[in-house]
Amino acid sequence: MRLLTEQNIENIALGAAVLGTGGGGDPYVGMLMARQAIRTYGPVELYTLDELADEDLVVPTAMMGAPTVMVEKMPNGDDLINAFHTIGKYLGKPIRATMSIEAGGLNSIVPIYVAARLRLPLVDCDGMGRAFPEIQMVTHTIHGISATPMAMSDERGNTVLLETINNRWTERFARSVTVDMGATAMIALYAASASDLKQCAIAGTISKAEQIGRTIRAARVSELNPVETVRKEVGGFLIFKGKISDVQRRTEAGFAKGDAFMDGIDEYSGQKLQISFQNEHLVARIDDEIKVSVPDLITVLDIDTGEPITTESMRYGYRVAILGIPCAPHWRTPAGLALVGPQYFGYNVPYVPVEERYQ
Amino acid sequence: MRLLTEQNIENIALGAAVLGTGGGGDPYVGMLMARQAIRTYGPVELYTLDELADEDLVVPTAMMGAPTVMVEKMPNGDDLINAFHTIGKYLGKPIRATMSIEAGGLNSIVPIYVAARLRLPLVDCDGMGRAFPEIQMVTHTIHGISATPMAMSDERGNTVLLETINNRWTERFARSVTVDMGATAMIALYAASASDLKQCAIAGTISKAEQIGRTIRAARVSELNPVETVRKEVGGFLIFKGKISDVQRRTEAGFAKGDAFMDGIDEYSGQKLQISFQNEHLVARIDDEIKVSVPDLITVLDIDTGEPITTESMRYGYRVAILGIPCAPHWRTPAGLALVGPQYFGYNVPYVPVEERYQ
Repeated sequence: MRLLTEQNIENIALGAAVLGTGGGGDPYVGMLMARQAIRTYGPVELYTLDELADEDLVVPTAMMGAPTVMVEKMPNGDDLINAFHTIGKYLGKPIRATMSIEAGGLNSIVPIYVAARLRLPLVDCDGMGRAFPEIQMVTHTIHGISATPMAMSDERGNTVLLETINNRWTERFARSVTVDMGATAMIALYAASASDLKQCAIAGTISKAEQIGRTIRAARVSELNPVETVRKEVGGFLIFKGKISDVQRRTEAGFAKGDAFMDGIDEYSGQKLQISFQNEHLVARIDDEIKVSVPDLITVLDIDTGEPITTESMRYGYRVAILGIPCAPHWRTPAGLALVGPQYFGYNVPYVPVEERYQ
Repeated sequence: MRLLTEQNIENIALGAAVLGTGGGGDPYVGMLMARQAIRTYGPVELYTLDELADEDLVVPTAMMGAPTVMVEKMPNGDDLINAFHTIGKYLGKPIRATMSIEAGGLNSIVPIYVAARLRLPLVDCDGMGRAFPEIQMVTHTIHGISATPMAMSDERGNTVLLETINNRWTERFARSVTVDMGATAMIALYAASASDLKQCAIAGTISKAEQIGRTIRAARVSELNPVETVRKEVGGFLIFKGKISDVQRRTEAGFAKGDAFMDGIDEYSGQKLQISFQNEHLVARIDDEIKVSVPDLITVLDIDTGEPITTESMRYGYRVAILGIPCAPHWRTPAGLALVGPQYFGYNVPYVPVEERYQ
């Protein structure tokens, strides 16, 4: 167990945005919430999975919806606590800890807020090792853990509790309710015992995010190349450097969908890159050929500062570097690829691990 | 208390379809379900409100969604029981009885099925005295009773539980979930004590429906004019006789919406009538002038048999008589009209009670 203070959280939010692959929410809003909670309620205890007893019940907390809207609609915090308590009341069991469902600027931080406010431990793991756009896209699903009971709350005080026959149905109902709640909702779901999580969760994600964040900051002050520093830290590959020439986006069925277009610079001069996203980056094409696809990570960094750029903050004229990062091995199994491979998202191409193209 | 047998139910379904004002579901499907349940589990006890103790908890059950779809998608019954039990479990209290939320061919019968299967009493009342298309449109709302906790279940085994800040929000979430469930859902909601229902419910609706149904059947065998017999029984007004010339319908946001057009016959020859509906009939215009509007009832009867015709079964060529029937006095208060008056449905006209135009 170790304590997370305000400084740790800034690094976690920054590093998690690298793993968030364009999604997972804006780190700034999350940081404000978590900092305020830690100032008010004290530091948060970060436990490894091994430090929990097998029977301990862990309930992840998150924000669901289009990140474009999250930026404009500040969560009030009570909605999140409300969702979390609804699960505890429904199950009639004490909840031992919370955790992140995904790595992302906001969704790595949301559970820290809950942990601080309720004086509960945070577990150093997540269900994706990155961010994905849909509810069922967690390693829990591969291991047969139900997303429900799932609680959803809004800032007005409305709560919806779902009990579904599988995690695809959870996604379907939850997406509609999220739209009705104003395109974002606070959620608690995937209640699981620590023994189940030891089998299925991706361990160490919070510490990994923190380390990435620390590296980016260190590079800035030491005048190292921040992009290259991040690339080494995450074990990724540089696939493009360019200037954003256009971003087309639409909010559709509660998702931020769209495409970003870039013109190559330096050694990529004359090439064009297109990234298609659904909250998170799904595929990167160079001159119309898919070079990196889900479940591998496609991360857009500011070329000068190494700052990860989320899909909603991409703008014309930004100079960026694109990294391809190997995903967690869980996703490279047949069950993993069925859940989050390129074909699920409508791209009729086989998945090719990023290192096979770039190593 | 009296017992309802198969024969009673046929009359209730027929009469409730008159009060259903085009909606409330097809009586045939409901009758099959309720008959089967009574054959299997025995007759149902019908209680008046006065026969319940003040603290007795009553939970209405119903089917929600577009009646056009209900006809094609037979409920399996378990979904309904599932919704009902979810409320009991959530409230942690025994439920004493069930009741109809509205009068309608199907929704007057659905609670009879629940009562038969669970050996619980049915209460002789409802929340509308007719059918209305939206969740909040019940006399409970006027009296400040919450629609939630509300449980929704589908035939696959999915359940959604809503807890909302007001009954308009219940409608909003429930409508989306209904669409996701395949345009129909089985619901339990508006849990209330018998003492509250004594204040707000419309008493005697089941007996009234039964009496109307009995009258229609009696008229048929005695060769009385069935339309005139129904008119007298319900205290309504004949406003038109015509032949259906066109029906335009669309399923929109989980509602069956549209318009039916009729050419006058007999003394109405040369006139044209248009009925606009949203599950239920909302307004009837003769030669473009609104003659009857919500909350008063607009009922379409087969001119020869007196059989009530639901919006989904209206077809070109049918010869029909249109009755305007005064609504329950609850709806003629300012609070009632705000909830279900013509302006709520987008018709910018004042409400004029039907008897003021036709008496």
